[in-house]
Amino acid sequence: MSTSYNDDSLSLHTDLYQINMAETYWNDHIHNKNAVFEVFFRKIPFGNGYGIFAGLERVIEFIEQFRFSESDIAYLRDELHYKEDFLEYLRSITFTGSIRSLEEGELVFGNEPILRVEAPLAQAQLIETALLNIINYQTLIATKAARIKEVVGEEIAMEFGTRRAHEMDAAIWGARAAYIGGFQSTSNARAGKKFGMPVSGTHAHALVQAYRDEYTAFHKYAERHKNCVFLVDTYDTLKSGIPNAIKVAQELGDKINFVGIRLDSGDLAYLSKEARKMLDAAGFHQTKIIASNDLDEYTILNLKGQGAKIDVWGIGTKLITAYDQAALGAVYKLVSIENDAGEMVDTIKISGNPEKVTTPGLKRVYRIINKKFNKSEGDYIALDFENPQEEKRLKMFHPVHTYIKKYVTDFEAKELHKDIFLNGRRVYSLPALSSIQQYAKENLNLLWEEYRRSLNPEEYPVDLSQKCWDNKMKHIDMIKQKVKEYLDKRN
Amino acid sequence: MSTSYNDDSLSLHTDLYQINMAETYWNDHIHNKNAVFEVFFRKIPFGNGYGIFAGLERVIEFIEQFRFSESDIAYLRDELHYKEDFLEYLRSITFTGSIRSLEEGELVFGNEPILRVEAPLAQAQLIETALLNIINYQTLIATKAARIKEVVGEEIAMEFGTRRAHEMDAAIWGARAAYIGGFQSTSNARAGKKFGMPVSGTHAHALVQAYRDEYTAFHKYAERHKNCVFLVDTYDTLKSGIPNAIKVAQELGDKINFVGIRLDSGDLAYLSKEARKMLDAAGFHQTKIIASNDLDEYTILNLKGQGAKIDVWGIGTKLITAYDQAALGAVYKLVSIENDAGEMVDTIKISGNPEKVTTPGLKRVYRIINKKFNKSEGDYIALDFENPQEEKRLKMFHPVHTYIKKYVTDFEAKELHKDIFLNGRRVYSLPALSSIQQYAKENLNLLWEEYRRSLNPEEYPVDLSQKCWDNKMKHIDMIKQKVKEYLDKRN
Repeated sequence: MSTSYNDDSLSLHTDLYQINMAETYWNDHIHNKNAVFEVFFRKIPFGNGYGIFAGLERVIEFIEQFRFSESDIAYLRDELHYKEDFLEYLRSITFTGSIRSLEEGELVFGNEPILRVEAPLAQAQLIETALLNIINYQTLIATKAARIKEVVGEEIAMEFGTRRAHEMDAAIWGARAAYIGGFQSTSNARAGKKFGMPVSGTHAHALVQAYRDEYTAFHKYAERHKNCVFLVDTYDTLKSGIPNAIKVAQELGDKINFVGIRLDSGDLAYLSKEARKMLDAAGFHQTKIIASNDLDEYTILNLKGQGAKIDVWGIGTKLITAYDQAALGAVYKLVSIENDAGEMVDTIKISGNPEKVTTPGLKRVYRIINKKFNKSEGDYIALDFENPQEEKRLKMFHPVHTYIKKYVTDFEAKELHKDIFLNGRRVYSLPALSSIQQYAKENLNLLWEEYRRSLNPEEYPVDLSQKCWDNKMKHIDMIKQKVKEYLDKRN
Repeated sequence: MSTSYNDDSLSLHTDLYQINMAETYWNDHIHNKNAVFEVFFRKIPFGNGYGIFAGLERVIEFIEQFRFSESDIAYLRDELHYKEDFLEYLRSITFTGSIRSLEEGELVFGNEPILRVEAPLAQAQLIETALLNIINYQTLIATKAARIKEVVGEEIAMEFGTRRAHEMDAAIWGARAAYIGGFQSTSNARAGKKFGMPVSGTHAHALVQAYRDEYTAFHKYAERHKNCVFLVDTYDTLKSGIPNAIKVAQELGDKINFVGIRLDSGDLAYLSKEARKMLDAAGFHQTKIIASNDLDEYTILNLKGQGAKIDVWGIGTKLITAYDQAALGAVYKLVSIENDAGEMVDTIKISGNPEKVTTPGLKRVYRIINKKFNKSEGDYIALDFENPQEEKRLKMFHPVHTYIKKYVTDFEAKELHKDIFLNGRRVYSLPALSSIQQYAKENLNLLWEEYRRSLNPEEYPVDLSQKCWDNKMKHIDMIKQKVKEYLDKRN
């Protein structure tokens, strides 16, 4: 429209500084040094006790298509004035590194690696922004969905949020993430088509307005649709909506399945109880009551506490925008890099805020499962070469308050990451989406209830192995020494 | 990946119920009845005094490409079991209606039409969800950006939020909306390429970590990049970061432009004041101080109040996610429809909540500009055939508290909507993005300051013409009468 460049590639979907850093590395001939970055967040959102990882499908899609298009190169040259020599290099890049990642539907906690990129330094830098953009949003929504589903319980939760989502990608990838978190369906037909997930929906107020008459609108709808859910709050739920729905259902008898009525405004506790009575009195005991209207885990819990007779929950805005905490802060940090001698050396990022100090080195994450109860005792982060499975008695201690410790025996140490790409080649096949949802559910069943509750859950242990902890302390000391030397030299 | 359908069309980017309603209309042969829908929101987000409309570019793109693809049809048939006769109809659809809209960058207030769709009923229904998805997000971000820019003032505001945005579309369309709201640039290179907008960025902590030494990292960066902004908080801002930046700048002299330093953590008020002193003492009076780290209008106002020496503001999460109110609630309501006799009749949606009662009929919105001060007296919503410009003395009264009224003379009544599509043909050319930004700025200058302040702004008048108000009251009476008749009949 207002520009002459085709939006034909996602490879420029990055912060400009990544390109400038890649150029610096390339100019200094260190762009192909092997570098290892980890993605992690520090704090689980919503005060929840766990996160649910989502985003891998799109990460794979992005990595497989990562290649600067001719229009990308033309833009960088003609508008941003990058020089031809560097552009030649960019033109030559595909992703040749390796990626290990949690599987989608895996539980994830603060300060543990979600995904690890081991790649030529410049490549690893160029993909950072897109990976964070994808993982932050999808993990946020899968987590919010699981949190809401926890309160919904065995009843049905449907995702309804497209119109309030943050543009189109959020609507469809958010719908998918909600499904991973335990939702049964989305209202978005494109998400259903793209991801093969269930879609649901019947009619809106506009149908009633178009016919200017509720009875006629329901009747016309039922003439073409065997499974009917009638929206009953266009004029007056109890005086007009439900009586009209019942009337149409009675007249049409076996010709339709009177699946449900939907309440979308008013006092959902009161209205649902009255609606249940009216439906039962008319013999429609199987007809479900569907409720929507700015619902989230708090309103649902309250409605249940008030004895609302709601069978199906439609959740829109509060889920798809993660309204009460609209961002997840996952970061991408360098943990190891090749030195001039070709050896890998670990790196650390220091901060005045102790929680922001990174944990250096290549690591693996194990879920320590108590075999007796088949429940998880916590996650255990070890250096790449360690194998906690070989230990008979595993020491687990808090990475900050180290006096808090326990010894675990008779456990299984399940390694959580899978190889996704090896030297640029994909070695992982995504499971079917329904299997991912099932996987999330099974993972949640490994948690004791105190980690799952929505209000004030216990803090799930994410511990470092002794070697990993020692390595971190060593690096902190090294940095302190370096700053001291630097200051001594200046003074 | 997990599905066999190509995501090759956005036409299914809709709630399933729209398709079911379209099917009902088609089955009843009323799908081509002329229908008029309006998009509007009830409340300006963030407690702001005005909204800024954005989203039209993508709406136009969507409408021009609106056409069910073969894969859409196959999905609807094979997975959702729609019947061939209805699918034949869907296959035949392109958008043949008319759209009138505010221009992007226009001020928008609660309860006034943003955009009006006049189209065959089924078509108008099928495009609803996508239009709301687009307009809700982009308008939300343009408004948040303008609100932040109001506090930033003449200084520079840069958009930095891609990694926290809600997936990829939000990152780029949000960057564009932020620019419309007054931001100078984005960090997202793809947004720069797609929209022809300024991009900015230098380097991240990873550069310093990769070189394991701040001085070397800055030096290597400067070897390739003439314009240098150094990020100075990787180890210690005052003890190490700024001294190293100054050292490199002094050594390289004229070879680089020492454009700025960037602070991304710590006490930005204190650090910026100290940084300014250090830079000035070294003779770098022109070197700018750029600050970022979870900034929004509140933190910026506070930092300014503390005398922070910040020249450029980098805003990420809080802008791109509209963190404090992550959703705009624009809706799409039927205001008029063709009856069986082929005449247009107005429609109303009643609600127990008086604020949710819609205003029936085809309307136009005029901004009433006081010629003496060149400031706006308010917006005036009139029925389609009225022409307030002809009136010498315009009565403006509050649409709820009708005793609040004023008479305006010597005014210009500027009509706000433009024809975008006429009978399916586009008749509007989008201005250049920079002109849209300029237009927003000029529009804001029409507002008295009391409507622009971020805390407790005055409520800007959005009034109905007498005829429009009378028409609404008439329809409310008609509905009341209808419900009464219905109840009398039942009893």
